[in-house]
Amino acid sequence: MGRSLNRKEFMPTTKRELISFQGERGAFSQQAVQQLLGTNVEVLPCQRFEEVFQSLADKKADGAVIPIENTLHGSVHENYDHLLRFDFRIVAETGVRIVHNLIAPPGVTFAKVRRVFSHPVAINQCLDFFAQNQQVERVPFYDTAGSVKMVMEEGLKDAAAIASALAAEIYGARILRKSIEDDRRNFTRFFLLRRAADVKRRSARPAGGRGWKTSLVFTTRNIPGALFRALSAFALRDLNLMKIESRPLRGRPWEYLFYLDFLGKTDEPRVRNALGHLGELADFLRVLGCYPRGE
Amino acid sequence: MGRSLNRKEFMPTTKRELISFQGERGAFSQQAVQQLLGTNVEVLPCQRFEEVFQSLADKKADGAVIPIENTLHGSVHENYDHLLRFDFRIVAETGVRIVHNLIAPPGVTFAKVRRVFSHPVAINQCLDFFAQNQQVERVPFYDTAGSVKMVMEEGLKDAAAIASALAAEIYGARILRKSIEDDRRNFTRFFLLRRAADVKRRSARPAGGRGWKTSLVFTTRNIPGALFRALSAFALRDLNLMKIESRPLRGRPWEYLFYLDFLGKTDEPRVRNALGHLGELADFLRVLGCYPRGE
Repeated sequence: MGRSLNRKEFMPTTKRELISFQGERGAFSQQAVQQLLGTNVEVLPCQRFEEVFQSLADKKADGAVIPIENTLHGSVHENYDHLLRFDFRIVAETGVRIVHNLIAPPGVTFAKVRRVFSHPVAINQCLDFFAQNQQVERVPFYDTAGSVKMVMEEGLKDAAAIASALAAEIYGARILRKSIEDDRRNFTRFFLLRRAADVKRRSARPAGGRGWKTSLVFTTRNIPGALFRALSAFALRDLNLMKIESRPLRGRPWEYLFYLDFLGKTDEPRVRNALGHLGELADFLRVLGCYPRGE
Repeated sequence: MGRSLNRKEFMPTTKRELISFQGERGAFSQQAVQQLLGTNVEVLPCQRFEEVFQSLADKKADGAVIPIENTLHGSVHENYDHLLRFDFRIVAETGVRIVHNLIAPPGVTFAKVRRVFSHPVAINQCLDFFAQNQQVERVPFYDTAGSVKMVMEEGLKDAAAIASALAAEIYGARILRKSIEDDRRNFTRFFLLRRAADVKRRSARPAGGRGWKTSLVFTTRNIPGALFRALSAFALRDLNLMKIESRPLRGRPWEYLFYLDFLGKTDEPRVRNALGHLGELADFLRVLGCYPRGE
């Protein structure tokens, strides 16, 4: 395979890292991989989020990149559940602006396009485009990048896909229209996960120019004011909360787990004190990671 | 139609209420309708949640019943977004235990069943049953009650469906196995919604034996400690928070709306004071409803 040959030719001594993500090659998750680690990594595309986590647990991958929230659709709740079940560490975050492009095989001009394939969420984020181009039919497909792959493999003459610019590049397709999404304030936040044992070996990480974030998950005792008291551990130390997410606690109907992100680094004294304080109040507490705050 | 004839015969002077819900007749949402309003109502099944809300806005329905959270899967986030967009009032809540039954057309015995149709979520909640009955194939279908409807209409001789007991009753099918779900701590909480103008006319509601709940939605100013301060409006008055849910604030990336449920009635002085206090701290605040606490 050309890919392995290239690797042997140009990088004879360094084994490249393998990073898993959900989706086809060219997915927005792969763009997150590039933002987080550059292009000098191998990728392991997976069908489902659970497989992404499992590939890291099974040491098939050296790292995993997962979406955790989108500014239009909210949290990816399934991944919060996996973060609890698999005991990995969040070591970095990044925000990807979701730019949707109309992409077609070479030779297919815009005038020829009658069908547009993409994931239903992406289609729904380009409604202005479809309103202005009523000659094109919307065709729901399982994946954004996968729809580029398909129109290329099938050599469709009247079809295009909606996906990332990276997908066009990977599959050798052409971008017919750039940035056709309705709302430019569409960002997805991604986490880079590592196995806990690997993180200790990487302790000398660069200081983030924008400071650090810490993510954790806890449960409160089921008493009045419990969440308020838990948050006091941060508020009383002027630690700024960035996000709170609640998830149902399995086996205890109508009780919840809380996931928090706050600005601070776990080796700061006030963060250590806040975590100690929260530990007194919480039934269960786990730090999921401490990482440089992303752009 | 028999249904209308019965109505004329037995209830000549009273027009029955029409209540919309998502799903086919016999859906768990219809069971919620019965728990909330009894059986003396007409129902308007809708395909999508948005249509349920729209039917109430358009006065096609007198009330709407929507699921808001499940103890295994968490919140129905889409419905939180609709609650904000449509300005209705939550006037009641109820919890439905999700009991999955294996249901087949009359004459189809358990030994004959080779295929089981249901919604993928229901299928995934009955994995023990499938592990013990490897002769049956799982067939994903768009709806639980809809799968009962289909096996009846098609007169399938080797097929069953997984759905509510109510679905078996409505479509005249037989329950072959009761309660085949893996986890009995599977409950869904439903809201009954009314148009705000109609709620005023119904002011004399019965006092709930279990007290009252109030639901609201607010945004904080984007300053450190903002959520903690907002929650102080309740904690300082010993008002017990039951649930908090965050959703992305559209157009303001990485900022959030918060939905709160707490125990209390809006005409209690301490609740009025808490709402006044929260109003001082919040950029935006809307009470979504005050209703008797459900079982």
